[in-house]
Order: sequence, then structure tokens, then C-alpha cells
Amino acid sequence: MTVAHETITLTGNLIIGAQDVRGTDGEIAAVDPRTGQALEPSYGLGGAADVERATTLAAEAFATYRQTDPDVRAGFLERIAERIDGLGEQLTERVQAETGLPRARAESERARTTNQLRLFASVLREGSWRGARVDPGQPEREPVPRPDVRQRAVALGPVAVFGASNFPLAFAVAGGDTASALAAGCPVVVKAHEAHPGTSELVARAIQAAVRDSELPAGTFSLLFGSGPGLGTALVTDPRIKAVGFTGSRSAGLALTAAAAGRAEPIPVYAEMSSVNPVFILPDALRQRPEELGAAYIASVTTGAGQLCTSPGLVFVQDGEGADEFLAAAAEATGHTAAAPMLTSGIREAYDRGADALASRESVQRVAVGSAADDIACAGQARLFATTGDAFLAEPELHGEVFGATSLVVLVRDRAQLERVVDALEGQLTATIHATTADHDLAGGLLPALELKAGRVLFNGWPTGVEVGHAMVHGGPFPATSAPRTTSVGTRAIERFLRPVAYQNVPGELLPDELRDGNPLGLWRRVDGELGRH
Amino acid sequence: MTVAHETITLTGNLIIGAQDVRGTDGEIAAVDPRTGQALEPSYGLGGAADVERATTLAAEAFATYRQTDPDVRAGFLERIAERIDGLGEQLTERVQAETGLPRARAESERARTTNQLRLFASVLREGSWRGARVDPGQPEREPVPRPDVRQRAVALGPVAVFGASNFPLAFAVAGGDTASALAAGCPVVVKAHEAHPGTSELVARAIQAAVRDSELPAGTFSLLFGSGPGLGTALVTDPRIKAVGFTGSRSAGLALTAAAAGRAEPIPVYAEMSSVNPVFILPDALRQRPEELGAAYIASVTTGAGQLCTSPGLVFVQDGEGADEFLAAAAEATGHTAAAPMLTSGIREAYDRGADALASRESVQRVAVGSAADDIACAGQARLFATTGDAFLAEPELHGEVFGATSLVVLVRDRAQLERVVDALEGQLTATIHATTADHDLAGGLLPALELKAGRVLFNGWPTGVEVGHAMVHGGPFPATSAPRTTSVGTRAIERFLRPVAYQNVPGELLPDELRDGNPLGLWRRVDGELGRH
Repeated sequence: MTVAHETITLTGNLIIGAQDVRGTDGEIAAVDPRTGQALEPSYGLGGAADVERATTLAAEAFATYRQTDPDVRAGFLERIAERIDGLGEQLTERVQAETGLPRARAESERARTTNQLRLFASVLREGSWRGARVDPGQPEREPVPRPDVRQRAVALGPVAVFGASNFPLAFAVAGGDTASALAAGCPVVVKAHEAHPGTSELVARAIQAAVRDSELPAGTFSLLFGSGPGLGTALVTDPRIKAVGFTGSRSAGLALTAAAAGRAEPIPVYAEMSSVNPVFILPDALRQRPEELGAAYIASVTTGAGQLCTSPGLVFVQDGEGADEFLAAAAEATGHTAAAPMLTSGIREAYDRGADALASRESVQRVAVGSAADDIACAGQARLFATTGDAFLAEPELHGEVFGATSLVVLVRDRAQLERVVDALEGQLTATIHATTADHDLAGGLLPALELKAGRVLFNGWPTGVEVGHAMVHGGPFPATSAPRTTSVGTRAIERFLRPVAYQNVPGELLPDELRDGNPLGLWRRVDGELGRH
Repeated sequence: MTVAHETITLTGNLIIGAQDVRGTDGEIAAVDPRTGQALEPSYGLGGAADVERATTLAAEAFATYRQTDPDVRAGFLERIAERIDGLGEQLTERVQAETGLPRARAESERARTTNQLRLFASVLREGSWRGARVDPGQPEREPVPRPDVRQRAVALGPVAVFGASNFPLAFAVAGGDTASALAAGCPVVVKAHEAHPGTSELVARAIQAAVRDSELPAGTFSLLFGSGPGLGTALVTDPRIKAVGFTGSRSAGLALTAAAAGRAEPIPVYAEMSSVNPVFILPDALRQRPEELGAAYIASVTTGAGQLCTSPGLVFVQDGEGADEFLAAAAEATGHTAAAPMLTSGIREAYDRGADALASRESVQRVAVGSAADDIACAGQARLFATTGDAFLAEPELHGEVFGATSLVVLVRDRAQLERVVDALEGQLTATIHATTADHDLAGGLLPALELKAGRVLFNGWPTGVEVGHAMVHGGPFPATSAPRTTSVGTRAIERFLRPVAYQNVPGELLPDELRDGNPLGLWRRVDGELGRH
């Protein structure tokens, strides 16, 4: 099935289930960061009454939606993907206008978003997400009979999702959190990121149409706009909301986590917050290909104007053979990098403050600066800094994230200092090693330390670019995330919105299908601990 | 291998790795709740320095212990079980003396504890806990090559375990939290419950010997004694501790959860806290066998003097045919119940306060009281109360847990009121339905609501007695636990102490064994999402 593209007239309304509601708590308009021009229409901002309306609808929808056949939910996710495809050029242009991201990125991010929805459809049909387990009863067991105990996963309840600034599609209205929550059987209330309301409305219209096409309860999905922490806090503290997905800053993530923990019924917050994604270039790799690595490093740093959660903010190299060439190549690449529009003027200002703070430190050397661009309203200039391992160990201010195309090269003295540096790192989304075979001894020594610090360890590549699949982990120890036992990307993300329930001696006719004798759904199940299609 | 029993001389010391340390922050002695007599020896209480010593050793041990072959850890768990078996009569007697629990319970709880250790050994050998996933690379993919991404689980780090008062073996020093954390590769620091220090020392000696026999790092296990919240808070806020297992009161659980959330690096607290375990006796079941159900109900309520997390504190019956007989049978059984020693005088006092508070309410009718026992120091008398559905809905004070052999029968008016009652319940460990086939329509209507309220739903039985297996869930929505997505009993408990890590393009020789090409360990793995031994 393909859905013909028709241009959607943006309304600036909140989308609460099947209804449009004009927000009356102020209004915002998107700004094109390339030109500084405001974009039509203005968006009315929601308040506490809108939150309550959306969550009440979501709670009503939950009773039905969580019990839909998973195949119905799979079809629903596929319809969302088709509808997003159907938004065609209008979506691509609006993404570019609201974010300043280039066309190729808008297109590839859209493909990632729809692929992700389709991937969760396949997960739903495969069925292992149901977590079916059967421990058959043993009525004859002495001294007491063993009960029949079965287990499956049930959905948590309505989920609040906060769109990220930097992925207007893939970590936003129909992004990974929404896709995995909807797959699990949880209605979703999205708070759109205020920087791209038009993109958010377009995608929300696609979901709203898919809800209708799939004959699902209207409250399965709502989209709210709000500014400042008020609406977000109201959403997270609403008693009907049972889990939260968030991607954004450390301060905002911690505020939401605290709000959720302070509820009468605390709920999980899956917040992805802050990561500097350290890269370790080991001595032989540095010796063999310093120029290539220096150029590739800056290509990774400047992807998306550096506004990626996995941007490599720190590179550690041993001072010695290849270090100068590496730094020279990175400096040259930085110097040749054209300024690119950043997402918002606020993000640009924060970026400049962060980079200036680095530049102002005595221990930090300014290596190179990219070109400026007076014709771009929110231009972010690439910047490259260097420091020493001694300074890095002494100054925690050098460990933090500067969100944007800035990175810091740390020249470490020797292997012992490298190991101390690893110990000093906070939790990360990623950690990267560049190594030749000759470096494997050192790499094998670092790997155990890095797997305790990061959600993903990669070799001979760059951390930007997160493959959506079954084995991916996009997560990691605090402060990278608030929930290191989970991932926000990849098929295991569905687990965040499920919990196990045991059914003891439940009569066969009342058992959920996935737990019935004879395995009528043909699922992989664990029977007395043994996996099989039995 | 069997370990011959030799009597262990109790020392009253803290056990920090291989060392005995005399605690100097005061001392405690256990009291036999049957006689009120203090038991030798006295136990020195630990302070902040002892916590730091134990956690420092645990952190050192972690680097080695987490990377031991899982088969080594399986052997270690089996040695612990053998050593606990080897404690023989000395342990059985000490448990009885410190808790007042009867011999049969001491013996069955010991069997459960050692079975559980052996079960986790089998889990380690089966290998699915490793969570191995492989998404092979596709170097030819356009527009960008697909990286090779693999995933496995790694241990979180040193774990703090708080022993429960009411399960001196199964939820204590070598209980489920310890067994699952040790299985996962996490060293454990236990804070013993102060009511049974001798039992705790005996079991800790068994673990200490098993650590030595298995040639593991001494810091793999430590046992601390402490009174009041000081030592516990120091343990939970120690930066080396990465997760917490707790079973106890709601107030203590919430305090630990708040302390953990307030750390520079917040950590998960798996707290099992408060549950009243509602039971619903449906009309036809009530009509068919009121006397049998009434007697069985009180047998469940009075098991272990009612000091079980799964004790049925609320029973809902529809006022009508069978209700009077049910209540009469329950009253008769209560009246015939001999007072039994409760665990401590503090618990007995709290029980009396809770039961008196119920008795004093105008809406509550006192139905029956068990016999008193002047010869038992900490005797708890069984008590049975009744109220109406109207009162239950109007008075949240009737919803809480009274820890001990007290239960409340709620006479509901009709099905509509029953549904309102279910809506009003907090999260629970268990929910129970008694139903005949004629009740299945009503039961099928209640089941979806109850599976959202409880970790385990059971039919035609009583919630006391938790089968340890692969499908069991001992958990549930807040306030039953602080972590409803997990279980503290059954094989899935190991997941609480693991997190996933992705390995991208890691050279074959540096990959962990479980992720290598050709599946050398013969594990179940998910390859491109498909399960198989491949």
C-alpha cells in the first residue's frame, strides 16, 4: 500500500487524540536557523488542562490498545511509516527549514525513522518480546504440589515521550521511544521539541491518520506543545503516565527524573542525557595512519554541526610518533570546515559559551577554528582544542560535553596515564578504540575498562551513526543515561515499556494465548527453563 | 562432594572479605522471641570505615570476579549450598532461636535457599543470561556499510544486599538477591538484619569458605552488622556500590531509594516493600465451598505468624450466598489459632498497633481473635476483621499492610463495586481469584485489571508460598516494589544485576567468547534477530 502525498495545512494546534485543540498558554513559532526568519504558523502552547485531557484519553485507550492483537499493532506501525513516507517533500523541506540540517540528513533520518517503525512491526510478529515462560505444575510433588506458573510481559501504561532537538524525526514524535512504546502496547503522549513544531505536527498527523486507519482508540496518541518546564513536569507527574522517554540535556533529564521519583507512584524515566564519547587512538594506529585518522575524526565531529549525542568530544592519543601529524591533519580539516547552521539560537549560544570556556583555560591550547559564515543566522564554527593528560586528570571541567562541533585532543604520556584517564571518565554512550593488530595487547587491556564505562564499544570507526538493529545498545552508565540497563535504539527498546507478570494455576480458558498449552501461537517459549518452540 | 558438619563458634564479628573485624559502633545481641532471652554472642556494629573497607575490597574483587568463567561461579554457588547444608542442626536451631519460626519452616527455608543457589548455577551453565546477539556486518551495503554489532550482558558492579527480618535464610545473607548478584558476576556486601545476627554469621561463614575453596578474591563477599539507618545509608551511598537489593518496610525502602537517587551517580534499588495481596472469592466458589475457603484462608493468613510478604491481608467476597458461612469458618479457624512468636518485639508492637488501629475504626467489625500465649515473649495473636465495600472505598486507611496474622474481609455489594475496589488498590505482589467454572465470566473480566496491579495472579490457591522457578515473578507495581520491571525470585532475578553492552567491529580475537564467530560456547544467540544455537 502506498499513500499518495497531499500537502497538509499546518494548524498550530495541539493534537489530542482525534481532536485539534488550540493551546492558550502562549505561543511559539519555529525559526529557520539558516535565515533567522520565523516560520508560519504559530503554535499555541498547552497547559495543565491539556495534559490532563491527553492523559485521560491515553488511559482510556490503554485498556483497549494494550490488548490489541500484536499483529494489529504491527500493521499500525507500518501505516505510520507509510504515512510518513507519504509526507514526501513537504516533510523534507520543513525539517530543513526548522533545523538547518541538510537535505541528505533529513532524508536519511526519515528513512531511519520509518525503518525503525517497520523493525518494531517485525519484532511484534516474531513474538519473543512477549517473554512467554511455562513451568508446568507437578501435582504429585512432595511435600507440596508444584503449582503451574507461567509468565508473560504486559504493557506498563501510557508513556510520555519528549522529542529531542537534534533528531527531529528519529528521536521525536514518531522516533524510537514512540515506536517501542506503541509496539509494547502503551499509548503515547508526546511533548514536541519547541524548535521544530511544524515537523512535529506533520508527523503527528501521520500517526493520527494511522490511528484512524487502524481503528484504534483515539487516545492512543496525542501531541502537545509547551515551553519551559511547566508542561513537561505536569506530564511526568500526571498519575496516568507510567513511564517517560527523554533525550536531551543533563539538567532537563535530571529534573524530569527527580519529578518522576517524587510522585506518589514513582515511574521509570528513560533519559538519555550527556556523553562525550571518548576515542582512543592507540600507538601503532597513530603511527600508521595519522593523517587519515585526523581527517576522519573531524568529519565525525562536524557531522550535523556536531549536534549528535554520539559526537566524539574527546580523543586520547599518546604523545609520540604520529601525534603531530594527527593533530596537523585534524587542524587542517577543522580549518576547512564551513560553519553550519545550528538547531536554534539558544543551542548556538550554549555552544559558544562552552567552547569559549574551554578556550579560556590555561591548560587548553586552541588548535584550529573552522570558517565563519555571516550569511547563516545560527552559524556554529568548528573548533579544535588540545590539552595534556595531566591537565585532563586534574581538571574535571575538561570532561564535560560541549554540544556542537568542538572536540578536545588529549595528549597522554604513557599507558599508565591512559589507564588513569579511563578510570576518571564518567559513563558514556560510546567508547572508541583505533588499533592495528600490533595494538591488540593494549586494546585488550582497555576493553574491560571501557565496557564498564559505555553502552557501546567500537573499533576503527567513529561513534556517530547508530545502526538500528537487534544487537545495538544506545545507552550507558550515568550520566549518559538514567537507565543503563536499557537501550533507546534497537529492538530491545521495547522491553522498557513492559513488565513481567506470573500466572499461577490460571484455568486454561482464561490464560493469555501466548501461555496456553500446545503453544497455539508457535512462539519461542522457555518451558521449565528450556528454550524451544514448545 | 559433601562437607562434614563441624560446629562453628560464633564470633560476633563483621566479616570483611577474609578478615574478621570487631565492630566498634555499639553492639547488639539477638533475642529469642519465644523466651525474651538474649542470645550469645553480642555483635559489634560497623561504621563508615567498615563500609568503606568492605566496598573497597568488593570493587577490587569485581575486576576479577566478573570475568571469572561462569562455570567457576556456578561451582561457587554450589559450594555455598553445600556449606549451608553442612551447617546442619546448628543452623536450624539458631534460626529457630533468633526468629521463633518452627523447625519445619527453618528446614524448608534452608532447602529453598540452597535450591535457589543451585538453580542459579544451572542458569549460569545454560548461558542465555549472557544475552548474546550478533548482527553481522554488511560491508557492501549502500549508501554506508553496515557495521558488525554484537551484544552481551556485563555485570553492574558491587551490590549491597539488605537482609529481611522475615526470611532469615531465603531473603538474607545467601538469599535470592545474593545468589542472583553473585551469579551475575557482582561481589556482594550484605547488611545483616539485626534480628538474626547468629544465623547471618553462620551463613556468611559458609560463603566465606566457598570463596576460599573456589579461589575467588576475598572481597567477593562481606557481611556487615549495623543498627538504625546509618550503616545502610553509608552502604547505599558508597560510590563503589552499583545496585541495591532490599526486602523490608515501605518507609525503609523509600529511604534507601531516595538515598540512591541522590547520589552523584544514581543507582538502581530493587526494594520489595509493601503488599496486602488481595484475594477475590467469586460468587459460585463462595457458594460451593464457603467453609473450606474460610479455613484455608486463615491457614494462609497465619502461616509464619502472618509475617510473609505474600500474606493475604484483604479478602473480597460478595455479600450473599455463602458469605456468612465463609466468615463463620474463618472466625472459627482464627479462634482456634494459637498465638505464635513474632520475629522481634518491635515487629510485635507494630503489629498490635496496626491491628488495634483497624479494630478502633467504626466501619470495621472485629470478627475473631486467636488465643493468647502468656508463655511466649513476643506472641502475636491472630485477628480477623470485616468491613463493607463502601467503607473500603471511602477509607484509604483500610488499604494498608498490617504485618502479621491479621486480615480484613471486605463484603462487597455487587460486581460494579468489586470493579471499583480493584481500581482503588495499590500495586501488589500478588492477587488471587477463587472461582469455579461458573465464575469464569467474572474472573475473565477481573484478570486484565489484576494483571496491571500485581506481579503474580493466581487462581484457587493462596498467595503464601512462592515457587522458585523460571516463570515466577515476585515483584509488582509500586508500592509492592520500587522496580516493577524485575523479579526478586526466580531465574530472571539475575537480570537485575546485568546491563547490555554492544561491541561494534571489535576484532575477533578481542571479542568475548560468547560473541565469537562460530558460537564456540554453543549458546542460544539471536543472530540478525533470529534465535538459534548459532
